[in-house]
Amino acid sequence: MEKSVGGRLIAASGSCSDILYGGGFNAADEFVYFEADGKRHIVVSVLEFARALDEAAEGVTVIERGEILRSLPKDAPCRDFFVALSRYCGVDRWTVPAHFPLAYADVMRANGVAVTAESGDFFPERAVKSPAEIEKIRFAEQVTEDAMRMVRDMIRSASVNSHGMLVRKNGDLLTSEFVRREVEAELKRRSFTADRTIIAGGVQASAPHCGGEGPLPAGKPIVCDIFPRSDENGYWGDMTRTFCKGRAEPAALKAFESVRRASECALRMLRAGVTGASVHRCAAVSMESDGFRTCKNADGLPCGFFHGLGHGVGLDIHEQPRLAPSNAEPLPENAVVSVEPGLYDPAWGGIRLEDLVRVTSGGYENFCTMEKELEVE
Amino acid sequence: MEKSVGGRLIAASGSCSDILYGGGFNAADEFVYFEADGKRHIVVSVLEFARALDEAAEGVTVIERGEILRSLPKDAPCRDFFVALSRYCGVDRWTVPAHFPLAYADVMRANGVAVTAESGDFFPERAVKSPAEIEKIRFAEQVTEDAMRMVRDMIRSASVNSHGMLVRKNGDLLTSEFVRREVEAELKRRSFTADRTIIAGGVQASAPHCGGEGPLPAGKPIVCDIFPRSDENGYWGDMTRTFCKGRAEPAALKAFESVRRASECALRMLRAGVTGASVHRCAAVSMESDGFRTCKNADGLPCGFFHGLGHGVGLDIHEQPRLAPSNAEPLPENAVVSVEPGLYDPAWGGIRLEDLVRVTSGGYENFCTMEKELEVE
Repeated sequence: MEKSVGGRLIAASGSCSDILYGGGFNAADEFVYFEADGKRHIVVSVLEFARALDEAAEGVTVIERGEILRSLPKDAPCRDFFVALSRYCGVDRWTVPAHFPLAYADVMRANGVAVTAESGDFFPERAVKSPAEIEKIRFAEQVTEDAMRMVRDMIRSASVNSHGMLVRKNGDLLTSEFVRREVEAELKRRSFTADRTIIAGGVQASAPHCGGEGPLPAGKPIVCDIFPRSDENGYWGDMTRTFCKGRAEPAALKAFESVRRASECALRMLRAGVTGASVHRCAAVSMESDGFRTCKNADGLPCGFFHGLGHGVGLDIHEQPRLAPSNAEPLPENAVVSVEPGLYDPAWGGIRLEDLVRVTSGGYENFCTMEKELEVE
Repeated sequence: MEKSVGGRLIAASGSCSDILYGGGFNAADEFVYFEADGKRHIVVSVLEFARALDEAAEGVTVIERGEILRSLPKDAPCRDFFVALSRYCGVDRWTVPAHFPLAYADVMRANGVAVTAESGDFFPERAVKSPAEIEKIRFAEQVTEDAMRMVRDMIRSASVNSHGMLVRKNGDLLTSEFVRREVEAELKRRSFTADRTIIAGGVQASAPHCGGEGPLPAGKPIVCDIFPRSDENGYWGDMTRTFCKGRAEPAALKAFESVRRASECALRMLRAGVTGASVHRCAAVSMESDGFRTCKNADGLPCGFFHGLGHGVGLDIHEQPRLAPSNAEPLPENAVVSVEPGLYDPAWGGIRLEDLVRVTSGGYENFCTMEKELEVE
């Protein structure tokens, strides 16, 4: 019996952060990354071949799809590609990511190729950022912060009409949609793509993922959450501030102070070696001691602090490590995580404050320099 | 023995056009669509629940993830979710899309739930657009065409320096990057996201997927391919024009005329009932008769016309039906397809002209109204 030969394989249609990480290259079309014999390879269509040769990471071999397809009958279905690939590189046992397409795996298995889905992350090392990655994320967060200042200034420079709504200099109402469009257009001008930017005021802000719509109110917290991705390298920024035009109501002010304290408490605790769960708990306990609930379901709808405190940010906007009750692992040095306590209540709206920080051996480096202040005049 | 009950199931992490089509809703987080007992459902996280109730298509039931998770032990891995879901809705036999995550399928199978990957499209009916979909794509293409006019005007209003390069009014060189950023920013202002917009001049245009970089040349074709997606509804526009600042060289002019004729020839042939392959062939034969090659690999690098003539456009930028040699099926009425012949040659660059059209019983409706002219003064 011949010796079994193992490899690692990713297939993706369009952008895939694991392939970008492993191969340094992203294609618009379907494409493939594999490791065999200790070497990394990407397989791309003829349309992408020249660009892939240019852009692939050092040590990555670029293969044109046709080179593998030539071994197949002319009218073979495209899913036979992976059987051909296995023969091409002499591998009969692949490890693949959890999200590997089922149809491909079934055909490979039917042809005697073993396929095992990775139970965890395909590249667990993505949780620890290299100096080059840190530089890219730091820059992404600077761009995000510039956009946040633009939002703050739009709210600050608005006037207030007799209905208590914000008004632009040209007399139009200042809406969530207008702020979102202007901010996302400005980010695009800097080659960053932002979608679903949250500009949510009043009761809308009490649903953490509500994007916000319609005219923005004065005297109510407006949650502004901006998370753009670099078109050039795929790394994300992520930042949230909450602004109130003019004086805020006492309930909102109290919540804001509690969220700010929770952020400070979590950041004081943050360093390599502490668990994600304990940092989350630190923020939760801080808000509980201020009298806020940290429950997931009370009286039907969630209220208080009911999401994770933070998440890793890199080539995915949500990645490892998590600052959440489920993460009992110590945080590694040079993880990059969001720290984003929030409080939500339909009675007064929502507050969230989010920084993006690098975990260091003795604490953290905060990529955000912008102050946390609710009221803008 | 109890009766086996079948259903259809999609799982996606982030945006998924099949779920958007089936459920009318897209989430930023991991989420699920399923059909059981003839009814459509989506399963979303607590953070998305309120928005999903608002936005889901008529007849779609929205289920909060926690409702299904409650039947699991507290520390069960998240992939057990699909076993719990199967019990929750009494299904023991799922049909899933080809791209269904392998890890989930393996756990379901190990727990006695059958999972079969669909061999074709999960929603083959997506190839035929409803009146509401047509309206959305028509609008997307109008926005795309506005952006194309903006590109044309930037090239037209540029001056030419002594090195034959385009120069902006402020004296800076007009670069691919600048045009891309300005166009994508303007599209974002209209709530459309464009990435990888192609603004490729000179020899760069001879690689169909090259995005273009650096200063743009006068007297050479500049391929401009813009394909934005609506942030609001997920439908795409797609359009290509090729411009030349000033007089073009004879070889490029000849190629341009040939591509324009191929487009006209393909459009004349296009109607419901003809095959995608025959429309492709019509364009290919037209360019061949003008003396151009239509081969995939000659002298090492591809040259001439070596991609498909077109593709369906809807919630995906590339979907069914294809105008390509592989598509022997008759085109259905109300398919929306791109028609994009092109010629590429490192000797003089590249030319591509792309319209987006709706297939009708007697011909087509062209969503593009912009003329096809190479030279802009």
